[in-house]
Amino acid sequence: MLTDGFWAERQRVNGYATLAHCFAWLERLGWLDNFDRVLTGTTGGYRPGWQFSDSEVYKLMEALAWEHARTGDPDAEAMLLRLTVRVAAAQDDDGYLNTCFGHDGQDPRWSDLEKGHELYCAGHLFQAAVARARTAPEDELVRVARRLADHVCREFGSSGRDGICGHPEVELGLAELGRALKERRYVEQALLFVERRGHGRLGAIPLLGPQYFQDDLPVREADVWRGHAVRALYLGAAAVDVAVDLGDDDLLDAVRRQWDRTVERRTYITGGMGSRHQDEGFGEDWELPPDRAYCETCAGVASVMVSWRLWLATGDVRYVDLMERTLFNVVATSPRSDGRAFFYANPLQQRVAGSDVDQDTENPRAEGGTRAPWFDVSCCPTNVARTLASWQAYAVGVEQTPGGGDVVTLLQYAGAEVRVGLTGGGHLALRVRTRYPVEGEVDVEVVEAPDRPVTVRLRVPHWAEGARLVTPQGEGEAPPGWADVTRRFAVGERIRLLLPVAPRFTWPDPRVDAVRGCVAVEAGPLVLCVESTDLPAGVDVEEVRVDPAGRVRPVGAGRARAAGAVVPAPEPAEGGRPPFGPRPPADSGRPFELPLVPYHSWAERAPTTMRVWLPTT
Amino acid sequence: MLTDGFWAERQRVNGYATLAHCFAWLERLGWLDNFDRVLTGTTGGYRPGWQFSDSEVYKLMEALAWEHARTGDPDAEAMLLRLTVRVAAAQDDDGYLNTCFGHDGQDPRWSDLEKGHELYCAGHLFQAAVARARTAPEDELVRVARRLADHVCREFGSSGRDGICGHPEVELGLAELGRALKERRYVEQALLFVERRGHGRLGAIPLLGPQYFQDDLPVREADVWRGHAVRALYLGAAAVDVAVDLGDDDLLDAVRRQWDRTVERRTYITGGMGSRHQDEGFGEDWELPPDRAYCETCAGVASVMVSWRLWLATGDVRYVDLMERTLFNVVATSPRSDGRAFFYANPLQQRVAGSDVDQDTENPRAEGGTRAPWFDVSCCPTNVARTLASWQAYAVGVEQTPGGGDVVTLLQYAGAEVRVGLTGGGHLALRVRTRYPVEGEVDVEVVEAPDRPVTVRLRVPHWAEGARLVTPQGEGEAPPGWADVTRRFAVGERIRLLLPVAPRFTWPDPRVDAVRGCVAVEAGPLVLCVESTDLPAGVDVEEVRVDPAGRVRPVGAGRARAAGAVVPAPEPAEGGRPPFGPRPPADSGRPFELPLVPYHSWAERAPTTMRVWLPTT
Repeated sequence: MLTDGFWAERQRVNGYATLAHCFAWLERLGWLDNFDRVLTGTTGGYRPGWQFSDSEVYKLMEALAWEHARTGDPDAEAMLLRLTVRVAAAQDDDGYLNTCFGHDGQDPRWSDLEKGHELYCAGHLFQAAVARARTAPEDELVRVARRLADHVCREFGSSGRDGICGHPEVELGLAELGRALKERRYVEQALLFVERRGHGRLGAIPLLGPQYFQDDLPVREADVWRGHAVRALYLGAAAVDVAVDLGDDDLLDAVRRQWDRTVERRTYITGGMGSRHQDEGFGEDWELPPDRAYCETCAGVASVMVSWRLWLATGDVRYVDLMERTLFNVVATSPRSDGRAFFYANPLQQRVAGSDVDQDTENPRAEGGTRAPWFDVSCCPTNVARTLASWQAYAVGVEQTPGGGDVVTLLQYAGAEVRVGLTGGGHLALRVRTRYPVEGEVDVEVVEAPDRPVTVRLRVPHWAEGARLVTPQGEGEAPPGWADVTRRFAVGERIRLLLPVAPRFTWPDPRVDAVRGCVAVEAGPLVLCVESTDLPAGVDVEEVRVDPAGRVRPVGAGRARAAGAVVPAPEPAEGGRPPFGPRPPADSGRPFELPLVPYHSWAERAPTTMRVWLPTT
Repeated sequence: MLTDGFWAERQRVNGYATLAHCFAWLERLGWLDNFDRVLTGTTGGYRPGWQFSDSEVYKLMEALAWEHARTGDPDAEAMLLRLTVRVAAAQDDDGYLNTCFGHDGQDPRWSDLEKGHELYCAGHLFQAAVARARTAPEDELVRVARRLADHVCREFGSSGRDGICGHPEVELGLAELGRALKERRYVEQALLFVERRGHGRLGAIPLLGPQYFQDDLPVREADVWRGHAVRALYLGAAAVDVAVDLGDDDLLDAVRRQWDRTVERRTYITGGMGSRHQDEGFGEDWELPPDRAYCETCAGVASVMVSWRLWLATGDVRYVDLMERTLFNVVATSPRSDGRAFFYANPLQQRVAGSDVDQDTENPRAEGGTRAPWFDVSCCPTNVARTLASWQAYAVGVEQTPGGGDVVTLLQYAGAEVRVGLTGGGHLALRVRTRYPVEGEVDVEVVEAPDRPVTVRLRVPHWAEGARLVTPQGEGEAPPGWADVTRRFAVGERIRLLLPVAPRFTWPDPRVDAVRGCVAVEAGPLVLCVESTDLPAGVDVEEVRVDPAGRVRPVGAGRARAAGAVVPAPEPAEGGRPPFGPRPPADSGRPFELPLVPYHSWAERAPTTMRVWLPTT
């Protein structure tokens, strides 16, 4: 469990504020009442919420299950049980469960596979049930999920409806549920859904085309993620689960290939994915505009889910590096520090400060600029909640090598007490002390160890050139990748990893046209940015320039200052001309030291203008 | 009339190919049958086309009226008369005319002002009638328009429905019709519609907000165009017409202010407007991405309409300069050289070559890359057709100075024979010989002149530094702006304007983040581009660099070659990392001379990759 620091604070706020906040909005908007209406047979007439509003309830339930397991919080448990009762009461006798279809006054079940989201909602219920099944004795939530999964298998099995859902998710839920409950047929149904996609089964949505829901190419044949980012990534995560459980190396290789190209060409420095607002989707290779970056929070969550599964399947450190990048710079960026407002989109440049958002109304827009308490389409708040509540699951891995040795891997660094059961018997307990990512020292103390050699594996992030490792055997360089310390540990022995988190410059690939002539500043895993709040009067964000040959120095709390200049924006010689001229604009300016703050903290103090990518002097 | 050259060729193709092409598609898709169905009372059931499909018929009728006036082509006349009969037959007894609302099985009239486009369609009918009224004796088309205009005035007058149309256009049609038919009440109705907008009368469209249809701010109060570009520009054009006819300087000043800021901050080097696909709209100031530039063809047409009206109202040369930029680089870019396929969007960079478009199907998408014969929303082909058919109207102006002198202004240059009646009596006839824009000499010969001094005013475009003027009085410099030659002209006398059309470099304002570190090449009014078709095997568009200190030389037919280099795209040292690294990418390359072609001709030879903005060495 986390003890202190960056993620512990976010877990704490999530537990005491965000979960209740989400519950209150679900209740207030009537998205919970929808379940009661099914029970009471009053579904005719107006139904609040989009077709997929049930899924927000399920994501909150998943978050509550993880939160209760993490803290034992009886309020979280009570809220989860109350929600379970209301959800269970809306389940039809044959296992079908959805508040938007199939009841009095509603469209028939499965009548709109493209946009209806029935299977999508089922998938989120399954994930909630998995969280419960992994942390408590089987209860009604798990039984509801079993009944619904059985229903889905009957309806959509190989001799049933030959359909898929417009929004992938049921594949992921079925695969996880099948694994957790040891029901292989659920995993096989997930595979069936995965295989059915990509053959044009779904009807077209105007202006979007079949790639919007990945129905353009079979998963096995695609080389890159495309279309709606969250859909593509949920599908990818499901494909990994299915591939691993069913030993399908071809399918696993397809996802790895898609991850490679997507990361190399369609991923922001923040780890954000999705560069288009129009379809909430991926753009072409190298199309990574900072201002119109969509980088939906949910796509960040989904990217972490895919990468984690790929690490579990392969042990490749690159997946974990991307998880860290995305967790610090997308997932941590979305919630306001009080846990009661969220970014939906996460652009890397804001030219016009967002307006103050009404904190008492659901926000109709998913644009960046200001965090909002809730959205008309409000997928992000509950997705953040379930991710933060289970963050520690992404931080530590336990495995056994083919030779029989136990390996305990520290994937992410945070102040924590770790105690894991070893495959070879006994436990390893570690106390991790660190102020990471603000400082680079990670101190790992052995608290309990078996009487045999065990490997403690530490991740040296790819940016950490010059990292050093101090072990009981001595001190040495720790190049990026995995640093293994194998030893018969004694209690009280320590491993210290020294990561260089001083701020540094980062350059874009020249094919990323949108940020040509710019550099970014990173510090450890944090992407930094310039925000108008920190600039003196009379200096605009668009006027600052940075000197990548100059000094960039830390000033505490993850902040930095970089040598540069202020180049006043040109005045047009003559108005009414397009912003292009026959001579290069003046680029001389007065020296200026740019104040930089962690990107995840932007727009916390006030609506601001902001940029991550800084034009060079 | 045009005799030869760039625009004469386009008018010729428009006349023999595009008009019949549009008619054939309208017939084939049933958008013409919709009128017949109203007549026969068979409107119940399926109706092909969007709510605004009537407007495509009207825009074609407008084009036919201009074409017949230009050439006397009896086929154009016959087609127009046949269309008039079918349209007139669908008009209700009270003057209402629309094939989508108000008849058996249809929604009631005016029941969806936000999206119904009834008034929008009426506006396009009015513009068609104006073309007819200005070029022929009053006929049935004009009478149909009168009846509909009277109906609109009754329904939406100051004591009628307090509504406006989601898509501005009726304002423009009413103002033009009122001016052409000397019916001031139509102009006053147009003013009423203009004034009603901007107060939130229209219901919200999800995710778009009231600025989508300019209902966020009154026209008089806005400082810049925003929202859907075509809507904003049609509204602007109408506001100028109304302001001029009713002597409303405040309203005129508002449009001038909006034009200034929009041109300075929201206009592409091509003259294109609209940087967002999501709402076909303007982005924020300086948000001008080349790859995702929407630059809808219709927005180019609309921009020309606004600028022309502003020139008529003020005489300011800047408006005419922008018209030329937009005509050559947006309007001329849309149609394929055979006049049977069109660009809808006009991006300035294409990373992935468009796929070949089925020439026998309407295209569902408005993306750039390949010209399509018709679109699901097919506003652009007929808009191009009416603009080309009336191009010469934008080329020459006649006015009288307060002192009583006659001024004949050559706004645009093309091989032409010009004969205009002078306000002071008599005629001035000029023969213009030029290969502009490929060559820079414009030779104007006086063919007929009155026996008194007359001013021939020539436009020296803003890019034409170093232009020279040769007149019967002598030769001299001609700085950008207006060059007046006032003289009692003798037949056979000549004026020669020598414009420097050698290719030149153009730099962006540093606030246009998306093209930082790049320059463009222009030659006269033409924007040039690099296209993959012209690159040797093994060189990609994304690998070329240009040296703005190096030579750029013309190679004929508007093409050029510029000194530069090929810098091979970097190979990632390790795959699966985002495209950002700790060191500047190598920028050394081998010398290379970049082949440049006019942007308007791109993707004519094959689907290609392309860029206007070229990274510098």
